[in-house]
Amino acid sequence: MKVLIYGAGQLARMMYLVGVPLGIEVNAVDVATEEVVNPVSKTPVGLSLIEAIASADAISVEFEHVPEQLLAQAQASGKLMPDMNTILTGADRVREKRVLDKLGIANCAHHIVDDVAQLDAALEALGDKLIIKASRDGYDGYGQWRLTAATELPELKKQLAELDLKKVPLVVEQMVQFDRELSILGTRNKQGDIRFYPLAQNLHHQGQLHVSVAPAPMVDKALEQQARAIFKTLAEGLDYIGVLAVELFQVNDRLLVNEIAPRVHNSGHWSMQGADCCQFENHLRAVLGLPLGDTSVLAHSAMINVIGTDELAQGLMAIPGCHMHLYGKSVRAKRKMGHINLVAESFQLLGAKMEELAWHLPMAFFPKLSSEAERLKQES
Amino acid sequence: MKVLIYGAGQLARMMYLVGVPLGIEVNAVDVATEEVVNPVSKTPVGLSLIEAIASADAISVEFEHVPEQLLAQAQASGKLMPDMNTILTGADRVREKRVLDKLGIANCAHHIVDDVAQLDAALEALGDKLIIKASRDGYDGYGQWRLTAATELPELKKQLAELDLKKVPLVVEQMVQFDRELSILGTRNKQGDIRFYPLAQNLHHQGQLHVSVAPAPMVDKALEQQARAIFKTLAEGLDYIGVLAVELFQVNDRLLVNEIAPRVHNSGHWSMQGADCCQFENHLRAVLGLPLGDTSVLAHSAMINVIGTDELAQGLMAIPGCHMHLYGKSVRAKRKMGHINLVAESFQLLGAKMEELAWHLPMAFFPKLSSEAERLKQES
Repeated sequence: MKVLIYGAGQLARMMYLVGVPLGIEVNAVDVATEEVVNPVSKTPVGLSLIEAIASADAISVEFEHVPEQLLAQAQASGKLMPDMNTILTGADRVREKRVLDKLGIANCAHHIVDDVAQLDAALEALGDKLIIKASRDGYDGYGQWRLTAATELPELKKQLAELDLKKVPLVVEQMVQFDRELSILGTRNKQGDIRFYPLAQNLHHQGQLHVSVAPAPMVDKALEQQARAIFKTLAEGLDYIGVLAVELFQVNDRLLVNEIAPRVHNSGHWSMQGADCCQFENHLRAVLGLPLGDTSVLAHSAMINVIGTDELAQGLMAIPGCHMHLYGKSVRAKRKMGHINLVAESFQLLGAKMEELAWHLPMAFFPKLSSEAERLKQES
Repeated sequence: MKVLIYGAGQLARMMYLVGVPLGIEVNAVDVATEEVVNPVSKTPVGLSLIEAIASADAISVEFEHVPEQLLAQAQASGKLMPDMNTILTGADRVREKRVLDKLGIANCAHHIVDDVAQLDAALEALGDKLIIKASRDGYDGYGQWRLTAATELPELKKQLAELDLKKVPLVVEQMVQFDRELSILGTRNKQGDIRFYPLAQNLHHQGQLHVSVAPAPMVDKALEQQARAIFKTLAEGLDYIGVLAVELFQVNDRLLVNEIAPRVHNSGHWSMQGADCCQFENHLRAVLGLPLGDTSVLAHSAMINVIGTDELAQGLMAIPGCHMHLYGKSVRAKRKMGHINLVAESFQLLGAKMEELAWHLPMAFFPKLSSEAERLKQES
């Protein structure tokens, strides 16, 4: 079986690695050059894009910002999963809000703005604590602005005046005082079967995910059910095929959808060691119409992103239950270089391992680690 | 880091797959063509053998029958681990017996014979229940003969007369009435650290391994200690670096060494799902001088070889804890096509899963499966 993935980064790479033992050949499309490459070596596999589309059993994406004409070409083959509209929904906050509202899924109160003059009405309706997001290309914290008082509005309007808001409208959102950030991932196949991974708790820093803990601590049955109901409504509403990630804000006992990602997701990387069948394998299974894999949890897991550094002391490899996943990239500021999965039998032991891990890492690049280790050690 | 493996079969392939996330590039030498290839795609990586040797941080083998001049070339680089003598010991039963005897390790009573006339003395000393093995190339059950009564000797002598016994002597062994076959695997690094995997129980059919169960049932502390002592004596005696496999016969509460394999081994494939750090990763860690990985057991595991067939019903993928590992080969009689790992929380549940798995497999190719499932279900 063959699967073609648009995007040749770490997510395609990890799909490739789990595909090999299953007899599934995963090739990747470098969307800049349109070359079809091996996701590990990045060398061309000797197929044109047209040949690769023709020979694939299924086509999918590792990121939602694939040029639209490429998605249209893939969609025309009838093999693209999830489909083009769903991928574009993940790439465009206006489309995303429309889908959420149409499906009646709770999310942050918002206005769509395609003219700076409309900001006054938004402010009136939503209050003066606002997050303003470009509807597209607002990836990893870029293209976002904050308003914390009405007096800042004139200055903000000046900044935004430079943008073509008719082409790229803004989503103006009420700033939510949330208790924490969670995500739910699951996989759905052509037959409509769904398997859920447990809620993960996510810690961000400067707009980037730094640490996920799964299963998330302090989750009762009602909260897990609420998350699953949101996932199910979305996945069925979109007739979604593959792994879908839903980022959530928890406000008291209520979950609001922050963002959806129509693909395997950084907050699911823990599943490589922490679940019987990881998200990468389950994505391949789903798009190929194979039986879905068991999402049962094997351990208490944490995923720690390695961002902007490759200075990992070898000593960390001696920690039991510590698993390195490097992406083979050269270092750049803010670049995701890899991640480290930790598994343990309890939150407390997970916290202790995280503390041990922290001794081997340059702390400037892991600002969330020590405090999270401390918090987990206190978990009951 | 770069590791060069002689042999481009499934063992190199599995080392490659675990190497990628660790930032370790594993290339393989096709010993027939001397080409340096990617272990998955089998396509040349664009390095001559001399260049690959020069750029490797460590060199190792996936099988012991590597042509001697190739081993000598690798050895000359100072990077070959385990070293040439050890690899040749694994490839030659006469050398192997000499090492075992020199280190005082219990093995089957035997005579070395390089002239058919010596068979009479062997028969006199060892009795008339004998296994006669060619010292070299006696791989996977080929080059073996059995004697069950003294009256068969003239006919056997006739068969053996065709061989050049000066060049390839015979090891004539007393046929041992063993209770079962076990193996112990472990890994040792340059610093002399050793980590042991637990004893595995192995079921063979027509000279090929079919099923391993690990940890082996019915193993008390004394037996495990006996196996570890044998491993330690051998590994330290050979100044061994890497994963070493020792095949054992259990006779009452005593262990006899049947064979040693200076490499990762089929009876350790269960560790991919059943141990924190699998044998493939631990081999790479050892030869690179990295900290050894934790060999702790995560579950009760079974490894089922897929031999001579590729007819695996997709339904088996729905069994929780069932993991396929295909080697990307075309079908041939007796060829190892892949293996299936099963994990469960107890021997009984493992037996139940094995029974479920058997429903999805063509039983002609899995002669040991149903009876082993039944046996495990009875395990206390």
